[in-house]
Amino acid sequence: MEKTLILLRHGQSAWNLENRFTGWTDVELSDNGRSEARRAGEALARAGIRPRYCFTSYLKRAIHTLDIALDAMDLCWLPVEKDWHLNERCYGALQGLNKAATADKYGAEQVHIWRRSYDVQPPALTADDPRFPGHDPRYALVPADDLPLTESLKDTVRRVLPAWEERIVPALDLYGTVLVSAHGNSLRALAMQLLGLSPEQVVSLEIPTATPWIFSLDEQLRVLSNRRLEL
Amino acid sequence: MEKTLILLRHGQSAWNLENRFTGWTDVELSDNGRSEARRAGEALARAGIRPRYCFTSYLKRAIHTLDIALDAMDLCWLPVEKDWHLNERCYGALQGLNKAATADKYGAEQVHIWRRSYDVQPPALTADDPRFPGHDPRYALVPADDLPLTESLKDTVRRVLPAWEERIVPALDLYGTVLVSAHGNSLRALAMQLLGLSPEQVVSLEIPTATPWIFSLDEQLRVLSNRRLEL
Repeated sequence: MEKTLILLRHGQSAWNLENRFTGWTDVELSDNGRSEARRAGEALARAGIRPRYCFTSYLKRAIHTLDIALDAMDLCWLPVEKDWHLNERCYGALQGLNKAATADKYGAEQVHIWRRSYDVQPPALTADDPRFPGHDPRYALVPADDLPLTESLKDTVRRVLPAWEERIVPALDLYGTVLVSAHGNSLRALAMQLLGLSPEQVVSLEIPTATPWIFSLDEQLRVLSNRRLEL
Repeated sequence: MEKTLILLRHGQSAWNLENRFTGWTDVELSDNGRSEARRAGEALARAGIRPRYCFTSYLKRAIHTLDIALDAMDLCWLPVEKDWHLNERCYGALQGLNKAATADKYGAEQVHIWRRSYDVQPPALTADDPRFPGHDPRYALVPADDLPLTESLKDTVRRVLPAWEERIVPALDLYGTVLVSAHGNSLRALAMQLLGLSPEQVVSLEIPTATPWIFSLDEQLRVLSNRRLEL
């Protein structure tokens, strides 16, 4: 039987507005981001696409995008599984910095490399940095060695794939239609896996915010088609 | 080690305001209900009580009360398990009727019996009634025989107890502090179990809306103390 996977990038956050590196920082949606999330849910309802199981990250901009979209579909009763493996790429010591100020300091080319290369890590956090996720109670059950100090996109892909294989694939088998509300880079990781993208292709893949991206999959989870919903 | 169980009845709903029998009808919180939920979360944060796992029903007034309270505690990343066994008592064919009009039709005494006896069921829905939960996709995976046409409080207790034994007790063992956001009668069922109340005691137990009720439990889940938080 055909399966349907819906990828949904969170709506605009407060730090998107302020042009800051966010990563694992737990920033709230902006008012515009909340409107985007509602429109995403309305677009899914109009298209007659009903998820039966949902995944999201441990970060409130993705959780709230999902909650708002589900409310717009009158589906807030659906099971929702939160998985830190779906978090945004960890931007290490850049987290919290203004992107323009960072370019002034390190040079625009260096910032471009950090943002758009596949396997270059930004400067790492130290474990005593308050931004290190090991200090956050939400990750208390995660072994500290599994928590990132910084990540290249390649690291993010490596971290996201176990969630795909161990959690999302079984949910697709069981429920048929699954929604994943997450982040630009964790969704790039999933799209890379689904579409067999090369590192060069995945770094230039742009995923618009709060725009449901619908994958039709066959029984073996090969992609039959993919399309983005009109909002 | 000591365990903590937090029982939270949802805030005011639109039909509480309209004085209608609600039961399994999926009615939204009122603005006042949303404020109540936020205050409940703030009271838990002030008291330093941090749940680590949450349960709620399949009904949006309980789900949204939980979401709002968790946001007020900055804990929206917590795992939340939705379980239809925690739904409100099914009020059968009374669902949707105005309580005063029902008293005019059947007599105040009869309505009092339906509302305040332990083992008398209100008039049942028929299976072809659009209000029968078997027509609602959210219960598609529940065997139709397990879905109520009407319930006495005794029936509700019998339906809630498996959720207590099979889901909530293991979560208390694993996580230590557990929050249950639910309904007047499903919470009565849990309180009856916890406090060893008689049928006479449980029918007269009033649980105020959106007021965290904190149970301290020993290793064997015997109640050491219980208190309601000040809002």
